Amino acid sequence: MPAARNGRDSTLFFAQALLPGGWARDVRIGVRGGTIAGVETGARPGPDDERHACAVPGLPNVHSHAFQRGMAGLAERRGPAGDSFWTWRDVMYRFVDRVTPEDLRAIAALAYVEMLESGFTRVGEFHYLHHDPSGRPYADRAIMGGAIAAAAADSGIGLTLLPVFYAHSGFGGAPPRADQRRFVDDLDGYARVLEGAARAVAALPDAVIGIAPHSLRAVSPDALAALDRVAADRPVHIHIAEQIREVTDCLAWSGQRPVAWLLDHVGVDGRWCLVHATHMTDAEAAAMARSGAVAGLCPITEANLGDGVFPARRFLDAGGRYGIGSDSNVLIDATEELRLLEYGQRLVHRGRNLLAADTGRSTGADIHAAAVDGGAAALGVTSGLAVGVAADIVSLDLRHPSLAGRAIDSVLDGLIFAAGRSGIDCVWRHGARVVSEGRHHAREQVVQDYVATMEKLTA
Amino acid sequence: MPAARNGRDSTLFFAQALLPGGWARDVRIGVRGGTIAGVETGARPGPDDERHACAVPGLPNVHSHAFQRGMAGLAERRGPAGDSFWTWRDVMYRFVDRVTPEDLRAIAALAYVEMLESGFTRVGEFHYLHHDPSGRPYADRAIMGGAIAAAAADSGIGLTLLPVFYAHSGFGGAPPRADQRRFVDDLDGYARVLEGAARAVAALPDAVIGIAPHSLRAVSPDALAALDRVAADRPVHIHIAEQIREVTDCLAWSGQRPVAWLLDHVGVDGRWCLVHATHMTDAEAAAMARSGAVAGLCPITEANLGDGVFPARRFLDAGGRYGIGSDSNVLIDATEELRLLEYGQRLVHRGRNLLAADTGRSTGADIHAAAVDGGAAALGVTSGLAVGVAADIVSLDLRHPSLAGRAIDSVLDGLIFAAGRSGIDCVWRHGARVVSEGRHHAREQVVQDYVATMEKLTA
Repeated sequence: MPAARNGRDSTLFFAQALLPGGWARDVRIGVRGGTIAGVETGARPGPDDERHACAVPGLPNVHSHAFQRGMAGLAERRGPAGDSFWTWRDVMYRFVDRVTPEDLRAIAALAYVEMLESGFTRVGEFHYLHHDPSGRPYADRAIMGGAIAAAAADSGIGLTLLPVFYAHSGFGGAPPRADQRRFVDDLDGYARVLEGAARAVAALPDAVIGIAPHSLRAVSPDALAALDRVAADRPVHIHIAEQIREVTDCLAWSGQRPVAWLLDHVGVDGRWCLVHATHMTDAEAAAMARSGAVAGLCPITEANLGDGVFPARRFLDAGGRYGIGSDSNVLIDATEELRLLEYGQRLVHRGRNLLAADTGRSTGADIHAAAVDGGAAALGVTSGLAVGVAADIVSLDLRHPSLAGRAIDSVLDGLIFAAGRSGIDCVWRHGARVVSEGRHHAREQVVQDYVATMEKLTA
Repeated sequence: MPAARNGRDSTLFFAQALLPGGWARDVRIGVRGGTIAGVETGARPGPDDERHACAVPGLPNVHSHAFQRGMAGLAERRGPAGDSFWTWRDVMYRFVDRVTPEDLRAIAALAYVEMLESGFTRVGEFHYLHHDPSGRPYADRAIMGGAIAAAAADSGIGLTLLPVFYAHSGFGGAPPRADQRRFVDDLDGYARVLEGAARAVAALPDAVIGIAPHSLRAVSPDALAALDRVAADRPVHIHIAEQIREVTDCLAWSGQRPVAWLLDHVGVDGRWCLVHATHMTDAEAAAMARSGAVAGLCPITEANLGDGVFPARRFLDAGGRYGIGSDSNVLIDATEELRLLEYGQRLVHRGRNLLAADTGRSTGADIHAAAVDGGAAALGVTSGLAVGVAADIVSLDLRHPSLAGRAIDSVLDGLIFAAGRSGIDCVWRHGARVVSEGRHHAREQVVQDYVATMEKLTA
């Protein structure tokens, strides 16, 4: 029985589990071919069941640039003339110049192992490193997407690959800079990137391909309209309104702010994920919420890059939904992302428990639920511990001092605000257990390959 | 040789070590009676030396309420009428009502174990839980301070005990509330608290006792002047300007903002640690910097409680110094405190590397150095890997993927911004190794006692 050998056909028994309707006791989850085939509550464990204390759904990571994991901690040095997002980008461009397909695989594998260990079970890889270091397309158009897919296979993480279309260095069709040469295509070239991506992910069990116009800076209005048609019903991701300079440049170019321009000129709907959307007026936040688009929030990176604080409370009041992304991967920790999302709101509004949905509700549980639902929508999959959904499951260590003895509906508060990722016990992805006692099964080999790669790249 | 058996007489050899003058190679550190007796650079290891990769000084934790570790994650639920610092305080008061001396010891021991594991080697315990649950002084005045000292001994952490004087519930001498009965003393009672504290810490190797007027809310001007005299040359710690309501109440009472009032009416100098000091005008920040007082910054708690962001960049420009505190202990992680300190500045100023001292300098190294020096001053001890200083040492795991292969002067950037506490290998306190591979030697027993205590307290 090969399916049983790889752990994807099994029955898991949890003393408590967070189901779509709320917490339930004595939950038996049957897994067949990586997918949840049955959920029974108030059950007795079978003799062959694998037994654990407490299950929650895995978190989708809606926005990652995996290769940037390799420069984590290398841009935290004060430069001349005041550091900003833009000077950070120069450091990143110099790093990206040297990355080969093999390097990309080794770096991404570490990032994905760390994601799984912290509770992320699927990643939206916003992938723009298409060409060789001279800027020429590789002979094999699938090679860089293939490196990402190989890293997903190495780690087991679910993959929504988002090949990026990048054409210009600024609003109004400014020609690309020399250090953007590895990203740049015209629409015909992008069609080949997409074909390569489809080949690259073919062997993964439940990969999704989406469309990613990089930003309003890098994509003209005509190309954006064309990409929206290419997308059909697939996810569409775009960077938007991350930096004040982008807002002022967009105003100078169009007379409108970025989110307002996008909502007015493109059919933004539930397929779309607007990454960052940090700088919005109240009217933009309300209009974005009405569009059904998911906000792709990346609290650690948005703090690291000095972007600003997303107007989450206002966006939620208008009915908006969001997912969480690790973006630059400077520090990969799903629990810290959720914690900083709430903490940013507390610092701005000088209050507490701002992202709980209502009085009496757990802030941790509500943030977690929003990020699971919004994140899955943004990555083109369904979510939750329910029949027909991929068995992407995180179990918590209820012996952890920040979780032990707590009422079950406070456990996600304990995880997010007190224990952090040390509260995570096991992680299953597509039915296979890939993390035990907080440690990915392939960690040792993946770290060894990563360290060797970094020694080469920084030599 | 009992001293050798407890590990306090030994020679440690580090391939690299951060000395007061900067990074050095092949550093032999001789330890005698818990204190650094010799530092040799460019040395050869002796045959009995204990060898490690990389040493940095331990961080002082300038502000802790250890018992609050027991309510970590229990106040993250949305209450009626808008949550704030003040509704959080009500939850904390209900928790504090039930804590016995034995409970306090068990809870504090876990907090101190977690502090050591994350790189804190000395704690300033802002200790106000003096009386029994009915508000009567315990027959043994040393019993609650003794519980703190016992937890320090259980964990090995260095202790600066800061017994708190608390008399009023608001500005202008308002009588204390019923739920403040365990904290309240007059000056005669406080003298007995101090005598008890001195007895409580007598068995610890290098404990310090400081004086802690709770806040301008809780202490009258006359009592504050009296406490300043009692302090003589000992550390003096006070909560100040944490919340906007405190600022408006102080203005209503005195016509001045809290920091301005304190600087105008009390001889604030280098003995003083002003905890939080979040809400200051530029003039107050400059005057506080000139006073020589240390700012006691608690970034995780200040985010959790929605206090606001300390004006760190302006305070440093005026020559100010700071230490770091874990305060409510909702999440104990020295690296996350330092990270959030810098990130708060980045979000406010929308830039990067704001707390590096100068162009070309490592932000992580500069924040770490400031927190070591300012923190030690605030806790009444000397700091750094130097002869005559307590051997409080943290070694880093240079095989960690976020630290491996980095230039040594980027290692603290890697630790603070990328690896987090998982980059810590061993911790020595007063010459004894108490943490190995990131894990405190007494963790198992301490967690067991803590969990049993919490099951009783939350039953």
